[in-house]
Amino acid sequence: MLSEFSLIDRYFARRARTNTRRAALGIGDDCALIAPAAGEMLAVSTDMLVEGRHFLSDVDPHALGHKALAVNLSDLAAMGAAPLGFTLAFALPKPREDWLEAFSRGLFELADRYGCELIGGDTTAGPLNLCITVFGSVRQDAALRRDAAQPGDDIWVSGTPGNARAGLGVLRGDWPQARIDGADATHFRRALEYPEPRVALGLALAGIARAALDVSDGLAGDLRHILERSHVNAEIDVDALPLSDALARLPRALQLQCALAGGDDYELCFTAAQAQRGAVEAAAQQAGVRVTRIGTITSPETAASPASAGTADAVDAQTRRTTQAWPAIAWRDASGAPLNLTLQGFDHFHAD
Amino acid sequence: MLSEFSLIDRYFARRARTNTRRAALGIGDDCALIAPAAGEMLAVSTDMLVEGRHFLSDVDPHALGHKALAVNLSDLAAMGAAPLGFTLAFALPKPREDWLEAFSRGLFELADRYGCELIGGDTTAGPLNLCITVFGSVRQDAALRRDAAQPGDDIWVSGTPGNARAGLGVLRGDWPQARIDGADATHFRRALEYPEPRVALGLALAGIARAALDVSDGLAGDLRHILERSHVNAEIDVDALPLSDALARLPRALQLQCALAGGDDYELCFTAAQAQRGAVEAAAQQAGVRVTRIGTITSPETAASPASAGTADAVDAQTRRTTQAWPAIAWRDASGAPLNLTLQGFDHFHAD
Repeated sequence: MLSEFSLIDRYFARRARTNTRRAALGIGDDCALIAPAAGEMLAVSTDMLVEGRHFLSDVDPHALGHKALAVNLSDLAAMGAAPLGFTLAFALPKPREDWLEAFSRGLFELADRYGCELIGGDTTAGPLNLCITVFGSVRQDAALRRDAAQPGDDIWVSGTPGNARAGLGVLRGDWPQARIDGADATHFRRALEYPEPRVALGLALAGIARAALDVSDGLAGDLRHILERSHVNAEIDVDALPLSDALARLPRALQLQCALAGGDDYELCFTAAQAQRGAVEAAAQQAGVRVTRIGTITSPETAASPASAGTADAVDAQTRRTTQAWPAIAWRDASGAPLNLTLQGFDHFHAD
Repeated sequence: MLSEFSLIDRYFARRARTNTRRAALGIGDDCALIAPAAGEMLAVSTDMLVEGRHFLSDVDPHALGHKALAVNLSDLAAMGAAPLGFTLAFALPKPREDWLEAFSRGLFELADRYGCELIGGDTTAGPLNLCITVFGSVRQDAALRRDAAQPGDDIWVSGTPGNARAGLGVLRGDWPQARIDGADATHFRRALEYPEPRVALGLALAGIARAALDVSDGLAGDLRHILERSHVNAEIDVDALPLSDALARLPRALQLQCALAGGDDYELCFTAAQAQRGAVEAAAQQAGVRVTRIGTITSPETAASPASAGTADAVDAQTRRTTQAWPAIAWRDASGAPLNLTLQGFDHFHAD
């Protein structure tokens, strides 16, 4: 069995050392040394991935290496920050060379595409757990914060959310009644295992969009974080949600469940002034990513009307208080008629 | 049961928000924004703590909160960096309010003493796992690197290493033959549970010491990291090792096992030119920490003689190659006579 230090050296450190550009000192010392460019801030985010929670025990290690870094790069994208580097801490039940080889390959293939270098880490024995902290560079006044949405802003989403949740449904056999053909199932599974962080889009939107976040826990739940931090409400046109062709072939209820309450696509949800519509479209074209307007930021006073809480007679007082609580999202169809949706984001201490 | 977001808010985020000084944007957005002072680098280190490996399942959560941050601050100390902030990612089997209350209190008591603020994090369900990434500030030319030791340097150690290993021995009942009185056992256990990061000493040594690291896996094993990175060897006077009164009351074999092969004290081991002896003593006095000279850095040519590998007849060729492999540490007693020590550092993928 390889010792911890041999493992790090073989799969991670040697690669990091030959690759070092931005860190003055990388793996092998007590700390890495890193600095943002003059006038820029370091954007920092950390994500922990746990077996059984964020991935299944038989996950392809190459896909896991990709995804572990992708979810972190996605946080940089949501901030409009350019990737610089990352640290990797992981606990492994026991080191298996074939597993580490595939994991590190998936990790570094993505890292190289975004010029994001491994600058430090930690390895220990324990139940499989991956913790990555990622560093990016952004001008403080251009950062896409969650607290910057304003009433009247358009609400946009990138890509076609919901495919990853459909992929999870396929893997877990959630919908035995639904007929899903093989090509669609492959499409969904790919979305789940190899999410593409929207780094180029985030960079192109800096200075154009107002508020942004990446959708990791579901559009309905994550949008609330922008609303809370910006002290606003929202109206969403559910019929405007962009769906992949594969997702559009599922029953409508599953489409909405996947697109609104499913996380793991790591698309960006952002707001921008209506006057910026052309600039947003141009930024998306430059980044090579589809973006779609799905709604509008409303002021806190124009809260969701009672009608938006659905058939009021059918819900008890407790439920009504919950669904009407600020921040409120008014769900509409293309005609503007209210829809009753009782969806919530994925909360890690609740059942999925 | 509290939801993930309520938990973070109750025990961590609210505290972090009211406390924010250095981060332009803290918990609650996709990234935190942080920058070192002009002309300084950001020193970054990450450590993962796993139940059963780094702490026992019945650990006092207040002590765990302290130690999880202490081991990271220790990495900054070993770099000569001033603490700025940290991110905390943790997996919890299920959130218990009393546990979180005590854990966060232990964490923030230490964080406040060093002006190190929580700037971001992640929480998930899973086997107990703590991952902290810490940020400090250091002038690049003053950083205490591992690769800067030179032949002729004195080798120093802070404090009295070995107490934490003795504390682990007491907790696990490793030495049923040894009589350890209650006050000594309490002293050992305190060293294990509440290590004090040598931040002030690290800062005082910047520009005076050459190479440094913090001893987390045992002095004998960790010193090798300096030797490897600096391409030098070492001679250690085992009789010069500073022992606590409590450790000095244990049998000599246990003293050496604890002081040389036991980690978890988080003392600093550093080298400095002989001309700096007065400056080192003054820095230690300023920091209020005892420091002791325990040996000398030697050139790679003056490798440990065969005698230092012990009774050569008794070891097979394989062992001899291993114990004589570069880098070599020649263990001596106060008279300069070679000692046979077959100790190694604590390697997380080997049995302890």
